[in-house]
Amino acid sequence: MSVDSVLARIDSDLPDAIERLKELLRIPSISTDPAFADHCQTAADWLVADLQSIGIDASKRQTPGHPMVVGHIDGDGPHVLFYGHYDVQPVDPLELWDNNPFDPQVEDTPKGKVIRGRGTSDDKGQLMTFVEACRAWKQEHGTLPCKITFIFEGEEESGSPSLVPFMQENAAELKSDVALICDTGLFESKTPAIITQLRGLLGEDFTITGPDKDLHSGMFGGLAMNPIRVLTKILAGLHDDNGAVTLPGFYDDVPELSDDIRAQWQSLNFDHETFLGDVGLKTPAGEVDRTPLEQVWSRPTCDVNGIWGGYTGDGFKTVLPSQASAKLSFRLVGQQDPDKIREAFRHYLESNLPDGFTVDYRSEKGAPASQMSTDHPAFEAARVALSDEWGTPAAFAGCGGSIPIAGYFKDILGTDAMLIGFGKDDDQIHSPNEKYDVESFHKGMRSWARVLDAMTKG
Amino acid sequence: MSVDSVLARIDSDLPDAIERLKELLRIPSISTDPAFADHCQTAADWLVADLQSIGIDASKRQTPGHPMVVGHIDGDGPHVLFYGHYDVQPVDPLELWDNNPFDPQVEDTPKGKVIRGRGTSDDKGQLMTFVEACRAWKQEHGTLPCKITFIFEGEEESGSPSLVPFMQENAAELKSDVALICDTGLFESKTPAIITQLRGLLGEDFTITGPDKDLHSGMFGGLAMNPIRVLTKILAGLHDDNGAVTLPGFYDDVPELSDDIRAQWQSLNFDHETFLGDVGLKTPAGEVDRTPLEQVWSRPTCDVNGIWGGYTGDGFKTVLPSQASAKLSFRLVGQQDPDKIREAFRHYLESNLPDGFTVDYRSEKGAPASQMSTDHPAFEAARVALSDEWGTPAAFAGCGGSIPIAGYFKDILGTDAMLIGFGKDDDQIHSPNEKYDVESFHKGMRSWARVLDAMTKG
Repeated sequence: MSVDSVLARIDSDLPDAIERLKELLRIPSISTDPAFADHCQTAADWLVADLQSIGIDASKRQTPGHPMVVGHIDGDGPHVLFYGHYDVQPVDPLELWDNNPFDPQVEDTPKGKVIRGRGTSDDKGQLMTFVEACRAWKQEHGTLPCKITFIFEGEEESGSPSLVPFMQENAAELKSDVALICDTGLFESKTPAIITQLRGLLGEDFTITGPDKDLHSGMFGGLAMNPIRVLTKILAGLHDDNGAVTLPGFYDDVPELSDDIRAQWQSLNFDHETFLGDVGLKTPAGEVDRTPLEQVWSRPTCDVNGIWGGYTGDGFKTVLPSQASAKLSFRLVGQQDPDKIREAFRHYLESNLPDGFTVDYRSEKGAPASQMSTDHPAFEAARVALSDEWGTPAAFAGCGGSIPIAGYFKDILGTDAMLIGFGKDDDQIHSPNEKYDVESFHKGMRSWARVLDAMTKG
Repeated sequence: MSVDSVLARIDSDLPDAIERLKELLRIPSISTDPAFADHCQTAADWLVADLQSIGIDASKRQTPGHPMVVGHIDGDGPHVLFYGHYDVQPVDPLELWDNNPFDPQVEDTPKGKVIRGRGTSDDKGQLMTFVEACRAWKQEHGTLPCKITFIFEGEEESGSPSLVPFMQENAAELKSDVALICDTGLFESKTPAIITQLRGLLGEDFTITGPDKDLHSGMFGGLAMNPIRVLTKILAGLHDDNGAVTLPGFYDDVPELSDDIRAQWQSLNFDHETFLGDVGLKTPAGEVDRTPLEQVWSRPTCDVNGIWGGYTGDGFKTVLPSQASAKLSFRLVGQQDPDKIREAFRHYLESNLPDGFTVDYRSEKGAPASQMSTDHPAFEAARVALSDEWGTPAAFAGCGGSIPIAGYFKDILGTDAMLIGFGKDDDQIHSPNEKYDVESFHKGMRSWARVLDAMTKG
């Protein structure tokens, strides 16, 4: 079976593929907001129907949360498991979108055509690159080059609570030779990358309570301790002047880079000034003695993702609030243990609360960092295929984000995971005006056709 | 003219006075809500009619907002201007009231009889203490002991937008020897107090912008500076470990207490543990080398009244936000200049912004502190009269809040203002189940009769 005719069909079918993607994008499958639960069902139904239209044996599988979509199709060669997610991030602040986030449009931009809308890059557009590659292959050859199992989840943007139990209950059905995950990006928007290390994630969401009611800042100000003052002091103390996190033991389980990886990353010549400049920033915020690439790929972080307290409406209210709240996340690396970091943070927080203050936590489960093994021959086959498609050598790269699923494939199914994606740095995922380049979509489909071809031959 | 017969009449007329107050309380004159504008007119009409029933030449005077009530009555002795306000705070959350807030009732409580309802203490009950004292005096002697001008406003709870223009336009009519303002309380619910110093107020409302869009904390975290991290560091740096504000020059224009005032305040034996304990707090938050009473009355403060940034909904969003915002207020004392403090704050803030970050301010006008001159003989006369009525020495007290009207009397009319009120700490003004002790109402009337008598003789 030749890949050339598949690539030609992908080229000629691009307009239809974009229309199909737009159908999926119009479904507002925001997983974190219960008001959108029905739309998550609708998105799953759409995917089941689309897989079935290619001849894949697909079904919607209910979970305690949003459903999974699972599909199977037989073929010769290795058994490949493909993962993507159909849920998307919330869209607020809605007023910062130039258009309805769920009415996707193809736009001409100075950098080329893009598809604009929530989920275009994260992850509906990426998920569909693989589905479309399979469709083209099936249409061209009547079959697929290998046995493929599809799993699409609907809870990735809200912590994947159902995924592990589902994988455990269905391990025999999902076990395969290699897993493909399409939820990452190109390196610096131009170099194809296979992600081999991912940071873990720990969330802390909490409220500090001081006075038992809101107070008048005239009557009490100066004498009554303000919870916002307490909170800002606690948060400000999390980083030292060199950008390092101050929690005792925080760096205990953080490994140094191997010489190989250090050399390879150096050869990538990461242009951090452009990377930051593209989002209006100038100066790296991380540890001053670490390279910018280490800061985002291999060093742990602590960031406040949300903060609130007191009066936040128009005008003034001279209130001394009873409470102040924050949402924090830690990106973890190496062998950092989420539970140990959580304990260190809570000890630090509580030891800085004034007498009489209390704290309530809204807990989320943490996930450690992942390090892929690249021993499976599929890794080298995929690297060559990607290099061929993009005309530039593909990299074994790190990723600052957390895709805990990569670890689950190994831990639960015993399957190595290969993370390949085509997002670009300026895709604005999780932000207003998210987009996916038509080039990413088009060359993404072609990349998968080549990767399947190379793996089958390998 | 003897005050004793006036006091006796006040005692015998108390039931009728309470009925009159209840009539006024039944009018829901919420100034901040346009839906209640007609009721503000009704309350003003009621006051005009009531003043006229005492023989006072009263009228309703329209403004761009809710009307003023102005009344005049001639007499010998000094010319006194009395101020109160007939508007009240909103009543939500309504479900926290035990009864209809606009169906006032007299209740027996373990601490004595109270009148319960919105506006009982703030400020209709207080305002009527003076009106009833005048009524009793007039009924007893056919005249009043001095020339009196009344001004009642209907916008105090919504920032008094019409008051300054009205005072300016009618300065000649309102100018008097001394102004009496009845909108404050007893010290610790038991010691009569004449407020002689009020803190000023400066508000700063601003937004810090770092990255030009919200970022994914995985993709950028560690390398991109988070505006919430910047904001918390700036806010945390505003106080040192001793609770003092760190802005350079902040304390330059803060006077030390005079020995007289220091001794008098010490003799008040302020029970700060009970004061803080009543709102669930334990430890004073202000400068460690200052007494609790100084911390709320005579020391300047900096408090964050509101803070917000990033994702604040349910669940998690690993966003690295573009912006973070806060509302700050400074309570000012002595000769602190709001403009100078604002400049010092902005210089501090801006010099702590990372390269490339910007800040936008939403400005509000600041007001300096007010220090009443107590040279006018009316102050000493009133102090003696209050001490006689309450059987405990009256205090020249401070007030942590800001009552800008006290400054307006001085600035616009050239008239010293004397703030005397009978509210108690547990009156729950601005809150559900507001009340005014019958003792406050009764002894408040008697106090004013004595004050008028003493001023006239002085």
